[in-house]
Amino acid sequence: MEKSEAAATIEMGETSREKKGKAPLLAAVDHSRGVAGYKRGVAIFDLILRISAVAAALAATITMGTTEQTLPFFTQFFQFRASYDDLPTFTFFVIAMAIVSGYLILSVPFSIAGIARPAAIGLRLLLIICDTLIVGLATSAGGASAAIVYLAHNGNSDANWLAICQQFTDFCQSTSGAVVASFITVVLLIFLVLLSAIALRKH
Amino acid sequence: MEKSEAAATIEMGETSREKKGKAPLLAAVDHSRGVAGYKRGVAIFDLILRISAVAAALAATITMGTTEQTLPFFTQFFQFRASYDDLPTFTFFVIAMAIVSGYLILSVPFSIAGIARPAAIGLRLLLIICDTLIVGLATSAGGASAAIVYLAHNGNSDANWLAICQQFTDFCQSTSGAVVASFITVVLLIFLVLLSAIALRKH
Repeated sequence: MEKSEAAATIEMGETSREKKGKAPLLAAVDHSRGVAGYKRGVAIFDLILRISAVAAALAATITMGTTEQTLPFFTQFFQFRASYDDLPTFTFFVIAMAIVSGYLILSVPFSIAGIARPAAIGLRLLLIICDTLIVGLATSAGGASAAIVYLAHNGNSDANWLAICQQFTDFCQSTSGAVVASFITVVLLIFLVLLSAIALRKH
Repeated sequence: MEKSEAAATIEMGETSREKKGKAPLLAAVDHSRGVAGYKRGVAIFDLILRISAVAAALAATITMGTTEQTLPFFTQFFQFRASYDDLPTFTFFVIAMAIVSGYLILSVPFSIAGIARPAAIGLRLLLIICDTLIVGLATSAGGASAAIVYLAHNGNSDANWLAICQQFTDFCQSTSGAVVASFITVVLLIFLVLLSAIALRKH
């Protein structure tokens, strides 16, 4: 009776020693699994943000690119007509936002590859570098167009530039909408960069 | 003789086993030392870039903030005078670039702390998040002012906005200089973000 008890104690002792030996290993496996799951979650969120950014960038490009207004009255020699390519800044806006849209569409497969292989650090680094450059392009286009839209709405008495929005109301409304869409794209892109930075940390 | 040889062999065997046991540990120490040195190099480069960015941002702010030109001729009622605050976009530029300069000056101590403790990941993550937001602010200020400077140089016949640079040459030159300085700041800030991203990877 006493002997078997002693045996049981030894067995228990061994089991606890086994546990002690295995515990760090198991914890490491759990930890790496947790990190992989976390990284996968970040990658899925990256894809969702990226698709939203594609939508916003396309909306900005198309809204600005199709902006045109012809006033209903005209003289014998002249018809009043406003189009986005009358202002070089808006032409730059359309080109820049088209580049941003194209880049974002091309980056979606890379984002999906990031979901399939959450540990691929090179891929994430490539995305963060390109995203940062694209943030610069989108922000400068948005900022420049915002300055011109402000001028079109309010004019400037010191420089003797008159507001043109009294006549071209529809033109001003759609260019303002395009600028707002570009700023939404910029905010989404900044979130993408921050998300990638946070994902890189947990390596 | 043979006995001592055998002993020597056993000793050698032990030494080699010892080496085998220690080798990974030593390699790990070497590796972590290499990573720390690499990170310290990145942190020093970060500080240099940051100080250059401070100089560029301050140059942009001061150039734009002190821009003022009074034309040498005047009428009885009116003196022709151009200052940066005649145009709201330039006022925004001065405020935004002042914020950027202030942030960059305040971030220098954090960058120095990054040299002292190259492994501090939280610090680097804080810097990359703030840097990305500041990139957005600096780029939008630079882009908006570039659009207005372009308009001041070339005017726009469709909107009936006349070029004002024929009269205010000095005003236009210094605002153009400020815009160029702001774009240099933006490029340096983008490099800072990319550098932090690369430093985060090697964790």
